[in-house]
Amino acid sequence: LLLDPVETAYDRDLEALDRGVSQMGGIAEKMVIDAMHALTSADAGLANRVIASDAWVDSLQREIENQAILTNSKREPMAVDLREIIGAIRVAGDLERVGDLAKNIARRALEIGRQSQLQGAIAGLRRLGDVATELMSDTLDAYAQRDGDLARAVWQRQSELDANEDSVFRDLLTYMMEDAGNIPFCTHLLFCSKNLERIGEHAANIAETVHFVVTASTLAGQAAERLPA
Amino acid sequence: LLLDPVETAYDRDLEALDRGVSQMGGIAEKMVIDAMHALTSADAGLANRVIASDAWVDSLQREIENQAILTNSKREPMAVDLREIIGAIRVAGDLERVGDLAKNIARRALEIGRQSQLQGAIAGLRRLGDVATELMSDTLDAYAQRDGDLARAVWQRQSELDANEDSVFRDLLTYMMEDAGNIPFCTHLLFCSKNLERIGEHAANIAETVHFVVTASTLAGQAAERLPA
Repeated sequence: LLLDPVETAYDRDLEALDRGVSQMGGIAEKMVIDAMHALTSADAGLANRVIASDAWVDSLQREIENQAILTNSKREPMAVDLREIIGAIRVAGDLERVGDLAKNIARRALEIGRQSQLQGAIAGLRRLGDVATELMSDTLDAYAQRDGDLARAVWQRQSELDANEDSVFRDLLTYMMEDAGNIPFCTHLLFCSKNLERIGEHAANIAETVHFVVTASTLAGQAAERLPA
Repeated sequence: LLLDPVETAYDRDLEALDRGVSQMGGIAEKMVIDAMHALTSADAGLANRVIASDAWVDSLQREIENQAILTNSKREPMAVDLREIIGAIRVAGDLERVGDLAKNIARRALEIGRQSQLQGAIAGLRRLGDVATELMSDTLDAYAQRDGDLARAVWQRQSELDANEDSVFRDLLTYMMEDAGNIPFCTHLLFCSKNLERIGEHAANIAETVHFVVTASTLAGQAAERLPA
């Protein structure tokens, strides 16, 4: 049995692309988890490590883009390969944004310090963080297994984010109105909650891309209108 | 003189890609200008038109991505063509985000209504909006003319955004602390100012891409660290 050398080199390229995206996903997911931990436990060292990881995620995105474009230019691709290549570029773009958002939360963790431990204000944010990290974890599983059903399930859970973010928003507004001294750090927490909501949206975007890669059809028409970010 | 038919078809593809990105840029830029106008003049009709435009920008991005990938797969590209193709994908990605952010400002304009006309609170936001729209306009000129120097100039103006956003942030915080009744709509304005800052960041990203397309070198190493978003 003789293998076509162009064919196998091409497949190796696609596998490398897949590994790159998975590696990037693992780092971005850990950044979100660590940023929330840094925020809720006022851990400045951990916050600084999250901030430092962002440059790594950025450089991985550039590598994936370049690798995708080079792979794509090697031969006229089949439709499924074309979807894989477009998919890798899109997922890497979303993961780069997730890394940015995790870095922003880590920076706010440094600004807020121990004030974040005001339990009432932080409880809702913690729940929102749990939903966002679950969506990230599931969407990366869906990507790794090219599981269109799991991708659809992640996509459909977007409304949970909105409901949680609304509730955090109302709680923080109440804290601010009760005591003007709460305003500065509650404002930081407001931005953190918006960052978490956006992380969840990027998880849903990735799910949409996975569904497209697997089935060649989009989920976008089924999207509920989202709240302003 | 006989032209190579593959060559000219390829060049036509690249020109179509360029036109698509420029068209998308024009729409996104107008959305930002209109969203700020809707906010500062409490024009609900205009806000609704901005919101409706976003779907158009989204579909243009998908078309540009597909066109870029198909062009790229037609032949082994030269380095400069490869940069053009990667550049179109990146710029379209940033413009899609700009459209989203303009839509978010328009949605908040609808929520806030006439309260936004509190002159003190809105003056700083207006200045921030002016800087963001100038950066958008200049960065799209730099793309249209493949002007690396103008791109570098846009990139270097990022610090103006941070300074303006800081000042808006402090003003809004003061308003909220003075009167708890200001908190709800000032919170909306806080998110609007963050959206404007992010629009300016996307303009700077586009400038970085233009510089890369023209010179094959990045500006990223020269970036000042940015404030949390």
